[in-house]
Amino acid sequence: MNIYRYEENPLITPEDVKPHRDDFEVIGAFNAGVTKFNDEIIMLLRVAERPVNQNPDIVKVPVWSPDVKELEILDINIEDPSYDFTDSRTISSISNKDGFMYLTSLSYLRIARSKDGRHFTIDDTPFIYPSNELEAFGIEDPRITFIGDTYYIYFSAISSVGVGVSLVSTKDFVNIEHHGMIFAPENKDVTIFPEKINGKYYALHRPVPKSAGAPEIWIAESDNLRYWGNHKHLIGLREGMWDNGRIGGGAVPIKTERGWLELYHGASLDNRYCMGAVLLDLDDPSRVIARSDSPLLEPEAEYEVNGFFDNVVFSCGVIVEGDVVKMYYGVADRSMACAELSLEDILNSLTYATSQ
Amino acid sequence: MNIYRYEENPLITPEDVKPHRDDFEVIGAFNAGVTKFNDEIIMLLRVAERPVNQNPDIVKVPVWSPDVKELEILDINIEDPSYDFTDSRTISSISNKDGFMYLTSLSYLRIARSKDGRHFTIDDTPFIYPSNELEAFGIEDPRITFIGDTYYIYFSAISSVGVGVSLVSTKDFVNIEHHGMIFAPENKDVTIFPEKINGKYYALHRPVPKSAGAPEIWIAESDNLRYWGNHKHLIGLREGMWDNGRIGGGAVPIKTERGWLELYHGASLDNRYCMGAVLLDLDDPSRVIARSDSPLLEPEAEYEVNGFFDNVVFSCGVIVEGDVVKMYYGVADRSMACAELSLEDILNSLTYATSQ
Repeated sequence: MNIYRYEENPLITPEDVKPHRDDFEVIGAFNAGVTKFNDEIIMLLRVAERPVNQNPDIVKVPVWSPDVKELEILDINIEDPSYDFTDSRTISSISNKDGFMYLTSLSYLRIARSKDGRHFTIDDTPFIYPSNELEAFGIEDPRITFIGDTYYIYFSAISSVGVGVSLVSTKDFVNIEHHGMIFAPENKDVTIFPEKINGKYYALHRPVPKSAGAPEIWIAESDNLRYWGNHKHLIGLREGMWDNGRIGGGAVPIKTERGWLELYHGASLDNRYCMGAVLLDLDDPSRVIARSDSPLLEPEAEYEVNGFFDNVVFSCGVIVEGDVVKMYYGVADRSMACAELSLEDILNSLTYATSQ
Repeated sequence: MNIYRYEENPLITPEDVKPHRDDFEVIGAFNAGVTKFNDEIIMLLRVAERPVNQNPDIVKVPVWSPDVKELEILDINIEDPSYDFTDSRTISSISNKDGFMYLTSLSYLRIARSKDGRHFTIDDTPFIYPSNELEAFGIEDPRITFIGDTYYIYFSAISSVGVGVSLVSTKDFVNIEHHGMIFAPENKDVTIFPEKINGKYYALHRPVPKSAGAPEIWIAESDNLRYWGNHKHLIGLREGMWDNGRIGGGAVPIKTERGWLELYHGASLDNRYCMGAVLLDLDDPSRVIARSDSPLLEPEAEYEVNGFFDNVVFSCGVIVEGDVVKMYYGVADRSMACAELSLEDILNSLTYATSQ
């Protein structure tokens, strides 16, 4: 696979982003949804910020309060024996170290704009910010699907009651209409197809079940983008392969002559995040035609290997121009980068199912 | 709370049910959905069966195979160190004892009919049986909502990829139309309201998130009963109370003058399952008006205390006649019982929110 990483990479780092409050610092500008708007490429950045903290005895936790409708800062004593601080991104209960009670940063969405796709200007203020109780811990990892004249933007909504996926829409990247949570907890990594197929909208989604099953990719259908059903399991983890830990949708599916191409992320059991692809039937996207045996893109560049959470390439959106796939992707949970791949190369790299 | 348990309780036990195969035995006939059809009361029983097994060295696991479209029986060696057999209902991986890899029984749905609501005749054959890969481990705990001329039946669909909720419908309890999985894993205990409210259908559901949150009750809306969205968190666990472990919808919500009354189950952290109630606003059922501080019904009778899984009362449906609520309920994951309560008594027993 021939991969052309931009010379300008990383395109945006936390240092390029002004915090939205004087008492905060930006620690991440990554996992951006991407689209074209007018004559510009828009990256809708996930910006992660944390309260500036000089006190080594406490961790400051930003929580959006539905009561006062603004951020509150909780001080958590690091000596408190009821908490586990092993993962710097979260604070867990010692009784459930696999889950989390709080996040140590707050993510929201912010617009970066570019004429050439390499040099971006970042808006001064947040574009989409937590606004209800289901977003109290922040909003993360947006994707953007353009249908008709409307940009549908959907993202992980995080709170103490769980992680789900909520939907908003805009026509002008100024005004926002909210459509509520479209996938209940626990769910992430939704990618909505850009057109109806046989009269129905489709979306990939990634439940995280507790009793049985694994973080794998499912497909659902809708007639209005707000209500979803007919959930089907699409693809699973693969033992011994690059995507044996968790998988989830990445970019909005790309329509090709050979099928719907979904660029998805897969993590190994040791949390190395790569990008691969799965090809779905044009008329019935619940039918899998082909899949990547090896990653298309894996963390190799310095900015992909070292960051806030190391060894991560994680795309939430691409721009396709002819045969060129401009894959924008978050690197190491810290910054944004872009690499170009050939669509034809990707399709030829897949392993096609022999039966059916 | 004045509770009248029927003298005939338990109304149906596993001994009353003929296994659907000669090589199987019935171990449960419980957690039935309930409705009126023509001049009869129908209990749609969850029947749990397991393969007859004389060999103490193996556990036989029934799995419906999507390939051959019938049951297959797996033999699991109890000496196999990769499995945990602590819970007799499941077989777990030793690496994840909280979850399960297999169930030791297969549940499906079977009709029992009665003229008087106390003496039931059980159909000879299953009514709804696993029929797709999402139901490979069985179908459980049905609820029935009657809307227009159609009975909507929905139930937990269990398989190796997770536990979700699927929907079918019937007009005659003979022919069934399948509508797919309406709530993706992990989810259970859906109860669909019996009429539209301000132009939308509503359902309670009970996600089981993994990273954050708990098994609590959410509410969603729909315009066609098949696709659901605008998920909102409704009520949570209450520390130190009877419902501090897990909660989930029970009966189909009952319309009263004071609001929508939902009879729900709550389990304590030591897995004692009781029934309580929550009252929701008539015009906006996402608004909670009142809730039970104490259970309405708790396991006390011998058949409620001792069974397959002890100390469980679990209602999936009631018949309301004037002020009388005939609460049908599964007891100890084994049999069915019924108790009558006064609707007025229930409403008066609730603790009403002082604000809003």
